[in-house]
Amino acid sequence: MSEIKIGIVTVSDRASAGVYDDISGKAIIETLNDYLTSEWRPVYEVIPDEQEVIESTLIHMADEQGCSLIVTTGGTGPAKRDVTPEATEAVCDRMMPGFGELMRAESLKFVPTAILSRQTAGLRRDSLIVNLPGKPKSIRECLDAVFPAIPYCIDLMEGPFLECDETVIQPFRPKAK
Amino acid sequence: MSEIKIGIVTVSDRASAGVYDDISGKAIIETLNDYLTSEWRPVYEVIPDEQEVIESTLIHMADEQGCSLIVTTGGTGPAKRDVTPEATEAVCDRMMPGFGELMRAESLKFVPTAILSRQTAGLRRDSLIVNLPGKPKSIRECLDAVFPAIPYCIDLMEGPFLECDETVIQPFRPKAK
Amino acid sequence: MSEIKIGIVTVSDRASAGVYDDISGKAIIETLNDYLTSEWRPVYEVIPDEQEVIESTLIHMADEQGCSLIVTTGGTGPAKRDVTPEATEAVCDRMMPGFGELMRAESLKFVPTAILSRQTAGLRRDSLIVNLPGKPKSIRECLDAVFPAIPYCIDLMEGPFLECDETVIQPFRPKAK
Repeated sequence: MSEIKIGIVTVSDRASAGVYDDISGKAIIETLNDYLTSEWRPVYEVIPDEQEVIESTLIHMADEQGCSLIVTTGGTGPAKRDVTPEATEAVCDRMMPGFGELMRAESLKFVPTAILSRQTAGLRRDSLIVNLPGKPKSIRECLDAVFPAIPYCIDLMEGPFLECDETVIQPFRPKAK
Repeated sequence: MSEIKIGIVTVSDRASAGVYDDISGKAIIETLNDYLTSEWRPVYEVIPDEQEVIESTLIHMADEQGCSLIVTTGGTGPAKRDVTPEATEAVCDRMMPGFGELMRAESLKFVPTAILSRQTAGLRRDSLIVNLPGKPKSIRECLDAVFPAIPYCIDLMEGPFLECDETVIQPFRPKAK
Repeated sequence: MSEIKIGIVTVSDRASAGVYDDISGKAIIETLNDYLTSEWRPVYEVIPDEQEVIESTLIHMADEQGCSLIVTTGGTGPAKRDVTPEATEAVCDRMMPGFGELMRAESLKFVPTAILSRQTAGLRRDSLIVNLPGKPKSIRECLDAVFPAIPYCIDLMEGPFLECDETVIQPFRPKAK
């Protein structure tokens, strides 16, 4: 069985400059540890809100590191430096609009400003790339909403088989026709 | 009154190679027969998951055959060969994001993997092109959700007037202002 | 404090030709007067459904007039002349898909043809551009849905601080972390 590698990319000028600690990326790693019973290895980077740097980091994680799943946090709002969705779209071959739609619908249950999140998802070759919001509380809400579809997505992309702790998260795999 | 032609495009490597029968395309024709009391003629093709072939089929049905409505089935997931949304976007002048959003929201009531469907819709000249999922059960769920808006859409595009069996489906046409 | 300017663009061949009065643009101004307690100045134009004219009007309002918010009405349907979303996307640096998603979901509570609206939103430099539907009743429904997120959006873009009559509309501003 191939090794399961998951990329975690924190996009933040301040975290990457050491102004504050990256609690968002760590919250993602913790959540994935909660979810997954399969062995997996994080490939973790903290980078500034620079579109070129985001693109090259995503490409490196997808093409060189072989991450089946790459999640980003940060840079999805309307502030001038927020360009994570643009970088994601630039490196993806095909987009997955359902992820952003569901995450915004989910966050809308809590705050009307959920519509300001421009987060998206897409496919680059053998990798699924998903943008998450920047705040740890919203990260968990969004991952809880979309993660049930991710193991089957990676199956369809012929990636590794992700096993989950079903007391924590219930991945859905339709029965073969 | 102009003849009503509806294109049905099954996009499937295996169905087009004769490996199995195309039950999805037939399910669409059956559903449209249930819905429509207007006379209509299907223009039906079964083709492989090749973006160029999908594009040329859609263009032929829109521009040469004069189909007011073209529905596709298959090729909207994350598997490597799934490129129906990309072909659709490539041939459309203007996109209709509301169709994909509603179909995914509808399918989400049944399965969390609904967000993996990348289906979209758009307009090419005088034709409305709508991607449907591949599975017959999901096809009917999605058509039941979006079809009520289609006759009025075709009215606005100055196409033929579609009459429906209102015991089966209720098309909505706002009163003129 | 910088002056608050809001652009209102009515896109309609007939209203711009004087065939009928522009009640939609006026409905927007009235709604914004209901919402806002801050002093604000409308920059108002009625223009035909020509993509180039829409683009140059949006650019002028954003770059020359310094409107923090620009709302359009009309031209978002599937009729041949409807090109407001295309003009909007052409002038924006970054898109805000959540606005269109929420407005369509909101309108779907009233009419199944809500999915025919292609309305979108996006950011051009220091301006937020939001497409609204053409009908006054739908305009209010859509503004009531999305406006609570707009003052905070403009805060994030470092624009002027919009104060609202909270008996009419409740803008949401998350507490600083």
